[in-house]
Amino acid sequence: MIARVYLPEAAAASGPVEVPADEARWLRDVLRLRAGAAVRIFDGQGGEWDAVLASIGRDGATITRGAARTPPPEPRVRYTVVMPALKGDAADEVVRDVVMMGASAIVPVVTARTEIGRAALERGQRQARWQRVAVASAKQSGRAVVPAISAPQPFDTVMAAEPGGAVRLLFVEPAVGRAVRRLTDLTRPDAVMLATGPEGGWTDDEVRAAEAAGWILVRLGGRVLRAESAPLVAMAACQAVWPEA
Amino acid sequence: MIARVYLPEAAAASGPVEVPADEARWLRDVLRLRAGAAVRIFDGQGGEWDAVLASIGRDGATITRGAARTPPPEPRVRYTVVMPALKGDAADEVVRDVVMMGASAIVPVVTARTEIGRAALERGQRQARWQRVAVASAKQSGRAVVPAISAPQPFDTVMAAEPGGAVRLLFVEPAVGRAVRRLTDLTRPDAVMLATGPEGGWTDDEVRAAEAAGWILVRLGGRVLRAESAPLVAMAACQAVWPEA
Repeated sequence: MIARVYLPEAAAASGPVEVPADEARWLRDVLRLRAGAAVRIFDGQGGEWDAVLASIGRDGATITRGAARTPPPEPRVRYTVVMPALKGDAADEVVRDVVMMGASAIVPVVTARTEIGRAALERGQRQARWQRVAVASAKQSGRAVVPAISAPQPFDTVMAAEPGGAVRLLFVEPAVGRAVRRLTDLTRPDAVMLATGPEGGWTDDEVRAAEAAGWILVRLGGRVLRAESAPLVAMAACQAVWPEA
Repeated sequence: MIARVYLPEAAAASGPVEVPADEARWLRDVLRLRAGAAVRIFDGQGGEWDAVLASIGRDGATITRGAARTPPPEPRVRYTVVMPALKGDAADEVVRDVVMMGASAIVPVVTARTEIGRAALERGQRQARWQRVAVASAKQSGRAVVPAISAPQPFDTVMAAEPGGAVRLLFVEPAVGRAVRRLTDLTRPDAVMLATGPEGGWTDDEVRAAEAAGWILVRLGGRVLRAESAPLVAMAACQAVWPEA
């Protein structure tokens, strides 16, 4: 498979462009490419090009841009994923999965039951790490868009945010005894914000607050899902109910 | 959360039942439970009971069955998942995910592009390992049913198998240039067999053979999915399109 190199400044480039250090190491030490090798570059904003590795060595690598390519289409529905700030690798897994599925933006959220707070997330530089996971997932899944990942937000801030026309879906566990809507009863929106809970789920207060703020409660089948699987299942459900073509 | 112990012979028991060695070790060394502790038992066939740990020690543990419980409902659609025999932990991930989603049966399949053959799968005792993963996932997701995992099958055998009334869905990648059906155009069946490809996808010959055998080609959105994520996405798509309640 041809290497896809993430080069955010590719669109503006005329001559050879310097490749970021971590991408250069990957090309040299993992893929063992030499000058003249054909690669592809994408800018994370939807642009993708044929390209040639112009130089590669200990000091870095440069790439020359060729003809523009047509990357695979982005989803017609714009998905913003509100992701619980899960511990350890679990949030990485969520980022990888929802980027693969075509998420446009990712908003990490700290809830009553997430086991890690905003200060710890900042100390751990998790936002930068998730952004790297998003780049890797875009490479693997053939996307030319790398979704932006915001700084972790408190639950109340996310719930109260202006939806800007998006349908907002709060996915709840089977045991939550409140009226829910069926996805199949909703008409396809242009934009969706979808939120799934942390391990242990949303608190009753959180569910009530979301409802009061205009979020629609929906359910994902009848079984209890792992917190790190729920965002992928939620996106898959929306895309099945609102097919793209 | 109360411990759920897998006890296949629970339904037939009257007095205290000996717990399998690995479950006994888990109760003693991980959960550190003592005699008298309340637990739940499930038999993997849909039965679940309140129970009490009657004895626990170096030699094992016994459990006394109490009142029957009503476990969460199984899906109304019966799902048989045809899973590519992926390398390493990837197939474990698939088993865990589809058990969580309510699969009734799992059929590992060796295709032209799976990187591991049937002989190697048998030497590695993968079937027994997957069965253990299925038990662990049933515990975690609250299911009282543990799906059977068959021995790995050749692709042709699976394609030619008598469907027994099941709708058979072969999920193909976006690049496969053949006519596909939309899930939303199919009426809810009583049973589904769903098959997703290995890393690198199905070969053209495999897709043609499946079609000739009566499998329906469907697509999962417009992006390339990781082979280990595709079964979960496929089940989520079916369950969203054919809601249970």
